[in-house]
Amino acid sequence: MRVKGFSAAAVEAGIRYKNRLDLGLIYSDRPAVTAGVFTTNRVKAAPVLLDRKRLQRGQAQAVLINSGNANACTGEKGLEFARLTADMAARELDIDPEFVQVASTGVIGEPLESEPFARAMPGLVKALSRDGFDDLARAMMTTDTRPKIVHRTIAVDGVLVSILGVAKGAGMIMPNMATMLCFVLTDARIVFPVLRDIVTKGVETSFNRITVDGDTSTNDTVLVMANGAAGNGWLEEDNPGAVATFRAAMEGVFSELATMIVADGEGATRMVTIRVEGAREQEAALDAARTIANSPLVKTAFFGRDPNWGRIMAALGRSDCFFHPDRVCISFDDVMMVENGLGLGPDAERKAAMVMEQKTFTVHVQLNDGVECGEILTCDLSNEYVAINADYRS
Amino acid sequence: MRVKGFSAAAVEAGIRYKNRLDLGLIYSDRPAVTAGVFTTNRVKAAPVLLDRKRLQRGQAQAVLINSGNANACTGEKGLEFARLTADMAARELDIDPEFVQVASTGVIGEPLESEPFARAMPGLVKALSRDGFDDLARAMMTTDTRPKIVHRTIAVDGVLVSILGVAKGAGMIMPNMATMLCFVLTDARIVFPVLRDIVTKGVETSFNRITVDGDTSTNDTVLVMANGAAGNGWLEEDNPGAVATFRAAMEGVFSELATMIVADGEGATRMVTIRVEGAREQEAALDAARTIANSPLVKTAFFGRDPNWGRIMAALGRSDCFFHPDRVCISFDDVMMVENGLGLGPDAERKAAMVMEQKTFTVHVQLNDGVECGEILTCDLSNEYVAINADYRS
Repeated sequence: MRVKGFSAAAVEAGIRYKNRLDLGLIYSDRPAVTAGVFTTNRVKAAPVLLDRKRLQRGQAQAVLINSGNANACTGEKGLEFARLTADMAARELDIDPEFVQVASTGVIGEPLESEPFARAMPGLVKALSRDGFDDLARAMMTTDTRPKIVHRTIAVDGVLVSILGVAKGAGMIMPNMATMLCFVLTDARIVFPVLRDIVTKGVETSFNRITVDGDTSTNDTVLVMANGAAGNGWLEEDNPGAVATFRAAMEGVFSELATMIVADGEGATRMVTIRVEGAREQEAALDAARTIANSPLVKTAFFGRDPNWGRIMAALGRSDCFFHPDRVCISFDDVMMVENGLGLGPDAERKAAMVMEQKTFTVHVQLNDGVECGEILTCDLSNEYVAINADYRS
Repeated sequence: MRVKGFSAAAVEAGIRYKNRLDLGLIYSDRPAVTAGVFTTNRVKAAPVLLDRKRLQRGQAQAVLINSGNANACTGEKGLEFARLTADMAARELDIDPEFVQVASTGVIGEPLESEPFARAMPGLVKALSRDGFDDLARAMMTTDTRPKIVHRTIAVDGVLVSILGVAKGAGMIMPNMATMLCFVLTDARIVFPVLRDIVTKGVETSFNRITVDGDTSTNDTVLVMANGAAGNGWLEEDNPGAVATFRAAMEGVFSELATMIVADGEGATRMVTIRVEGAREQEAALDAARTIANSPLVKTAFFGRDPNWGRIMAALGRSDCFFHPDRVCISFDDVMMVENGLGLGPDAERKAAMVMEQKTFTVHVQLNDGVECGEILTCDLSNEYVAINADYRS
């Protein structure tokens, strides 16, 4: 999986743990048009603060990524550290330090030491390769059980353009920038305003529509770099057909990565789409879907393969969405369980329990009160989630 | 534990399970001034709808309570059923049916059969006894591991007045009427407006300040009955000193029952007070405390005895409360862990981990941005919670 003009690498720097890839680098052989979306959490990690500022110019050429330490709640020193490591990479790559983005994931609130970064940097740059993205995806992992990487090739006005995305995330995942980290690289030639529009809107309907545990991270980052190496005609406002094609491909990459994150949700055994339909307003439908998707009682019932629709009604009822309880219909895939607020009995529940044996299914909640709908992708809550998070730091 | 003029009883009616108390009755030998507070969930169970209506007159004489079935999401039939069982009790007690309140707890969305109620009613009324409250508290239990009952005696203008409270609740517990069911009986003579005021305000600072899992039930009910049998001088506006004494005692009963509910939270091993201080507004402080108190990552860290303050900062940051990250201080009891947004290191964490060995402790989050504070009582999230709720219906 390659994208023209981009290379990547990862090494074992020993930032927190030994014998695992924990420091990665993405490099473009020329400055790339770059758009980013960052966490909405009021507590923002140092790399997020630095990147946001540097991206005002809409250009970047490299991203330095570490796992093991989030560099969050580390104050002025954390910011200095982010700048320092970016400088190290810039020096080694011989590029403008302002063109280096940084991203961190791991434990919050612990100081970082620069020594492992300084020691690893020459080897990291030397290891850069067109085929380094698998290693990179591994280096980003924390509680993830597998690397997440997606590749697409599309034709833009007859020229082949590639998109490659890598992401990590398994816990502290919730709408409003749900990935912890996601990097998407393309060799497309595209102007900044169009790229920014595609990224902002694309994030809204992919990463911001998933949840694992309702916790929004301090480090959430999506960076999209476009270096133009494909040599396609410029993707710009005058070329709406080509922009639409590219946008669809980019959205596909986002959605696929977002889905991979939920599928790899900490301890998850089931992936469930909560779709609230027939609401008066889209925001209300989304709020209802999110409330259901984050309810511990609903999520444990998914884990127990229990088609306990009463818990769905109860979660719906405490959301900010208006509805008439006696109009609500609930189906698991195409098995109707509730009609006009009333359960359809043991037979329907038996069939719904069979739907729940699948690894993925959809819960349709039809409010019959309007035409708007909202969809959130979630996973179940298993004892494994508790085990992972009770033990994570030890 | 007795209150003048009140009796109670419970029997095995076989509503859902055999060989357990599942139908209870509270009876006052005269109509009692009664105030109630009910769930804010948009989906309200039939008993809640019936009780709310009947309480408009501020009077009741009996409460019929069943576990095993919540009579929620049961539509028109559920309402008829609630009325029918109230009628059965009224006939057997020979009182006005309008003076009977009903309350149900258990599975949502399953139809009820009247036969077990009809069969059990004569025996239930016959079993009424001054000492029946322990049995009653047991009959209300679902996933509760122990009955919850509190008794206080105070002097009101030199006359002894008793207050007895029973409650149940362990899961689907969250601010905005957090108990599933709570009944408080007193022999005080009190006028309705004063009682209503005491109950409404008392609920706000007790039951509405706890959470187990963030899920608000469809059946939450607090009923307070005052039958005047103590013969004290009327508790009314003209008697502010006595009202204050009585209010303090009632609030004490509420708080004690609320605390018992969290202590018996499903799978809970720790009870933690989240106290957010130094906010600009009380509502914001409460929202911040609630967001921290409901964060699965914070709650699993409590279970793991991991003083992982980074998760507290991350939850705080996604709440609706404004603050400056670099002013935040966090302590576990009196062990300071974070000062001005920065961690105080391994030594502080070791001491905080020792605080977490206690069954109860307080997390102080000082925002240093104002003078308002808010407090929520929560528990940890253990693998036992998942086991209980993955298996509850089976």
